[in-house]
Amino acid sequence: MKVEGLSYRSIWFDQKVNQVKIIDQRWLPHRFDTVSLLSLKDFQVAIRDMWVRGAPLIGATAAYGIAIQMKKNPSDSSLEEAWHLLYATRPTAINLKWALDRCKTKLLPLPECDRSTAAMELAHKICDEDVEINRLIGYYGLDIIKDIAKKKNGKGPVRILTHCNAGWLATVDWGTATSPMYHAFDAGIDIHVWVDETRPRNQGSLTSWELGNHGIPHQYIVDNAGGHLMQHGLVDLVITGTDRTTAAGDVCNKIGTYLKALAANDNSIPFYVALPSSTIDWTINNGILEIPIEERSEDEVLRITGKTLKGDLETIQVSPSGTKAGNPAFDVTPSRLVTGLITERGVSSASKKGLEKLFPEFIRG
Amino acid sequence: MKVEGLSYRSIWFDQKVNQVKIIDQRWLPHRFDTVSLLSLKDFQVAIRDMWVRGAPLIGATAAYGIAIQMKKNPSDSSLEEAWHLLYATRPTAINLKWALDRCKTKLLPLPECDRSTAAMELAHKICDEDVEINRLIGYYGLDIIKDIAKKKNGKGPVRILTHCNAGWLATVDWGTATSPMYHAFDAGIDIHVWVDETRPRNQGSLTSWELGNHGIPHQYIVDNAGGHLMQHGLVDLVITGTDRTTAAGDVCNKIGTYLKALAANDNSIPFYVALPSSTIDWTINNGILEIPIEERSEDEVLRITGKTLKGDLETIQVSPSGTKAGNPAFDVTPSRLVTGLITERGVSSASKKGLEKLFPEFIRG
Repeated sequence: MKVEGLSYRSIWFDQKVNQVKIIDQRWLPHRFDTVSLLSLKDFQVAIRDMWVRGAPLIGATAAYGIAIQMKKNPSDSSLEEAWHLLYATRPTAINLKWALDRCKTKLLPLPECDRSTAAMELAHKICDEDVEINRLIGYYGLDIIKDIAKKKNGKGPVRILTHCNAGWLATVDWGTATSPMYHAFDAGIDIHVWVDETRPRNQGSLTSWELGNHGIPHQYIVDNAGGHLMQHGLVDLVITGTDRTTAAGDVCNKIGTYLKALAANDNSIPFYVALPSSTIDWTINNGILEIPIEERSEDEVLRITGKTLKGDLETIQVSPSGTKAGNPAFDVTPSRLVTGLITERGVSSASKKGLEKLFPEFIRG
Repeated sequence: MKVEGLSYRSIWFDQKVNQVKIIDQRWLPHRFDTVSLLSLKDFQVAIRDMWVRGAPLIGATAAYGIAIQMKKNPSDSSLEEAWHLLYATRPTAINLKWALDRCKTKLLPLPECDRSTAAMELAHKICDEDVEINRLIGYYGLDIIKDIAKKKNGKGPVRILTHCNAGWLATVDWGTATSPMYHAFDAGIDIHVWVDETRPRNQGSLTSWELGNHGIPHQYIVDNAGGHLMQHGLVDLVITGTDRTTAAGDVCNKIGTYLKALAANDNSIPFYVALPSSTIDWTINNGILEIPIEERSEDEVLRITGKTLKGDLETIQVSPSGTKAGNPAFDVTPSRLVTGLITERGVSSASKKGLEKLFPEFIRG
């Protein structure tokens, strides 16, 4: 998508310098930096410390990480080591394992001398596939927004609430939750987006930055506000992304998603989750019991970084010195609260039955 | 309660200097400042700009504001003017109107020459009554915590989640939601408090500051986290305060309270609201339809103040420059989601019937 008028993806191979480049998202929305990732270590740091974030982008980044390692040392043990080191960076992200497994399956049977080129080609392919998948999510999600617009019949914009950043910055392009919004806006539908700030890491600021660059009307709200807005008829639709969805339709996503799903349910507002099928974990059903939730650093809660009035980046602490924090990074929204899953093959109910219809090849036993 | 070993109330009349003093809460938890309020204008600013906050403390502050004005000019028109100017500072706070009406009712029949002394005595009395009311809320709330502790039978602490600051800083002393916690801790019950940071104004930092000063184990969490903690059995009880409760038991409180009530309900966790009966608005029933919700400044959402690593107070902006925000300050939790109301006369169901039993004198028609 566009950044200051130029087209970007969130990760790309720069042929001029023969390097993998990313947008270093740590400084967004205040500073737009791109950076080259040169070694496996660079890729580990970029994923672990969230220079890149978002399930699909993490997967694509990991694939390039494997490729860089294969160029250096294409041996079996090197491939195994890269798999393990990259997997350890964000174990909750199902796309990470998906991309790593795909690389391993493709590369292991090949002679070592072919692995570097094949790995790089595969990483490019994973990126292009992601872009196409997100385009399709937008295509199918657009119908949902169109229907609501039709029902509203010009009585104000379609108001969409979203949590976290499941935008193009979290994918290679288009985004997942945002793709229907970009498609709807481009189709001339009047929309307005409520952007949850999404504490503790305030990824809502990235969503605002994206939407602002595209000219989509939106307002930034605290995570506490959504329920009230829904009670008062100010939300027509919720669309979020997901880091991992179970075969039964339970949705693991950024902490707080569950609260919005409860509020949507309580106010009879449709709650959709947009996802590439690669984020479906076909091996599990009950998300609350079976998905381990990453407990991240207390510092993420206790310190906030932003721009001072002078324009410098500064980190502040809001709570009293010495306060202990808790920081579960994700929660699970049970399928009963999810109206539908917007995938690259269409919209499905959040259920085993619904998912099986769209993805029969993954049915087990 | 204690601040660095000394006993304080949140507002008091300092007889040495003949002045009303408050804790200027804008700089807490980073800096502890007390300040004298000398003119009606000072009181307006202190309430409007949240040097003092919390329904009971706002009421007490307004009563002193009337007293200061009566000293200057005890005429009827001066009393009327002070009533209106003070009421306009925070129109959602029912205690404000309650305290102002009480002052007017008391003072109007008096000869002008007696009004100054009577107004000051009434303000003192409102403060002392508030302290006693909050002590009683703690006394009744303690039973609820005791029961849970008995059921847990030593299997870990009683884990209480709270939202915003309904602590002693929001009252004259003890607090409302915190009073049961202080009473339980002082009674030797093992408790642990999850403190919602409570965006946008992060009043959770005040609750952490209070609890830390009293030695109560607690963790500071983002507002998004509570649902996940409840899903995993890590919350035994929710206690919040309220700014305004309807005669039917709907609870208007800091934005986001409704989301926690939904999650508590979804996980069969008791959700209690602690309140002095002065915050009950006997004239209305349906909180969602009848309570106007204050939309506060966008700046509260877009800028955050805290302490830098160097120890200076600094204000930062997290969202992109030019972002528009929405900032509804309160929401309404329907009575169906409230397990009980903890009042100075005991615990009642969140219903007209329950409240009528405890407060028969307020029954209308």
